[in-house]
Amino acid sequence: MPVVENAPVTITAFEWVPDFARGYVRDLRPRWACEEIGLDYAERLISAVERPDWYFGEQPFGQVPVMKDGALKIFESGAILLHLGEKDERLLPKTGQARTDALCWLFAALNSVEPYTLEVLLLKFSIDEEWAKLRLPSLAGFVEQRLDLLADALGEKEYISGRFSIADIAMATVLREALHTELVRLRPRLHDYVARCLARPAFDKALSAQLAAFNRTETQKEKSSS
Amino acid sequence: MPVVENAPVTITAFEWVPDFARGYVRDLRPRWACEEIGLDYAERLISAVERPDWYFGEQPFGQVPVMKDGALKIFESGAILLHLGEKDERLLPKTGQARTDALCWLFAALNSVEPYTLEVLLLKFSIDEEWAKLRLPSLAGFVEQRLDLLADALGEKEYISGRFSIADIAMATVLREALHTELVRLRPRLHDYVARCLARPAFDKALSAQLAAFNRTETQKEKSSS
Repeated sequence: MPVVENAPVTITAFEWVPDFARGYVRDLRPRWACEEIGLDYAERLISAVERPDWYFGEQPFGQVPVMKDGALKIFESGAILLHLGEKDERLLPKTGQARTDALCWLFAALNSVEPYTLEVLLLKFSIDEEWAKLRLPSLAGFVEQRLDLLADALGEKEYISGRFSIADIAMATVLREALHTELVRLRPRLHDYVARCLARPAFDKALSAQLAAFNRTETQKEKSSS
Repeated sequence: MPVVENAPVTITAFEWVPDFARGYVRDLRPRWACEEIGLDYAERLISAVERPDWYFGEQPFGQVPVMKDGALKIFESGAILLHLGEKDERLLPKTGQARTDALCWLFAALNSVEPYTLEVLLLKFSIDEEWAKLRLPSLAGFVEQRLDLLADALGEKEYISGRFSIADIAMATVLREALHTELVRLRPRLHDYVARCLARPAFDKALSAQLAAFNRTETQKEKSSS
């Protein structure tokens, strides 16, 4: 596992989050990319509950992840994936249409799919509120149409831009959040695509690393309070 | 004006849209970038009302813009901005923290700001519906907080990552859609930033080019129906 103290690359993540968010925090994306290419990284854990003031100087919205690579500071998981992609062709082809396709799908995942799947999920989370009940049908209709087009574009391809790339790390983590809803479950092509991405050993290692950090924090808290 | 028939770079845009969308269709972004560096481009206009089936083979969601650059096909305005940025340092620095900052803010505009400002706008558009009335206060609260953080991050800088870049083309077009709402109007720092971006001659040329295409289509329709 490439979590290594004092590695030149550092990923900032949360030290603890509530159960429902575990395994879904966005530092999962750069962790996954690092695991794909065996790049060591150190963790810097901050509080999600009381985000330190200084952190907003590194991440304008107080979100995770932030990556440091030597003297370089990078925020936004899309920009971090792009940065890691430039390090290794296994994450992003160097030239040509293959490179362009991976970049187009990286942006598509973050700007044309995630905003809508996330809105549906937040809405289901708020489904006891009247506005959410009233809004769900029309929003779900739009998102279903979009996912049908995504499934068409995927076609028989193994990965969204052909060969595995940072675009799949973005798209699979976006769709995974809706994996157990009918949005993805009723679209076998998308469901199989996400399953194929998540079956990669690097994903499993990334997920374990995120969860391990939460467990360490809880163990430390239990020790200090006992 | 760099709209030139048979230029090697082609931007796909809509031939006609309703009044409220004029000047706001996303081909504005690559047009603006081309104008900044004096890059000639040809227009390919398609119907927004009946999007041709073949177009979904180029743009999975049927959206505009698509760019062709020689044999290369690019979709998603973020990926197109990145492609154009690689052509010219005036749009994207070649190396170092300056390049990284521009890329971080490009993703931030498209993934951490646009989804929320767009949601507020769609909601105001639907304000006669009950769900929209009930939802607006909580959503507006979240978006206001996010824009406050954006204004803090902008600080006294002229452009979002210091020097003008593709990040400003993304961020200014995102904020411009909310320019006449209190979201931007009540935040002088953001308002002045957007005004500064829109005062660039390249923006004005890009806007004129988009509007000119709609006017040409209407003139042609009037001629053919008279």
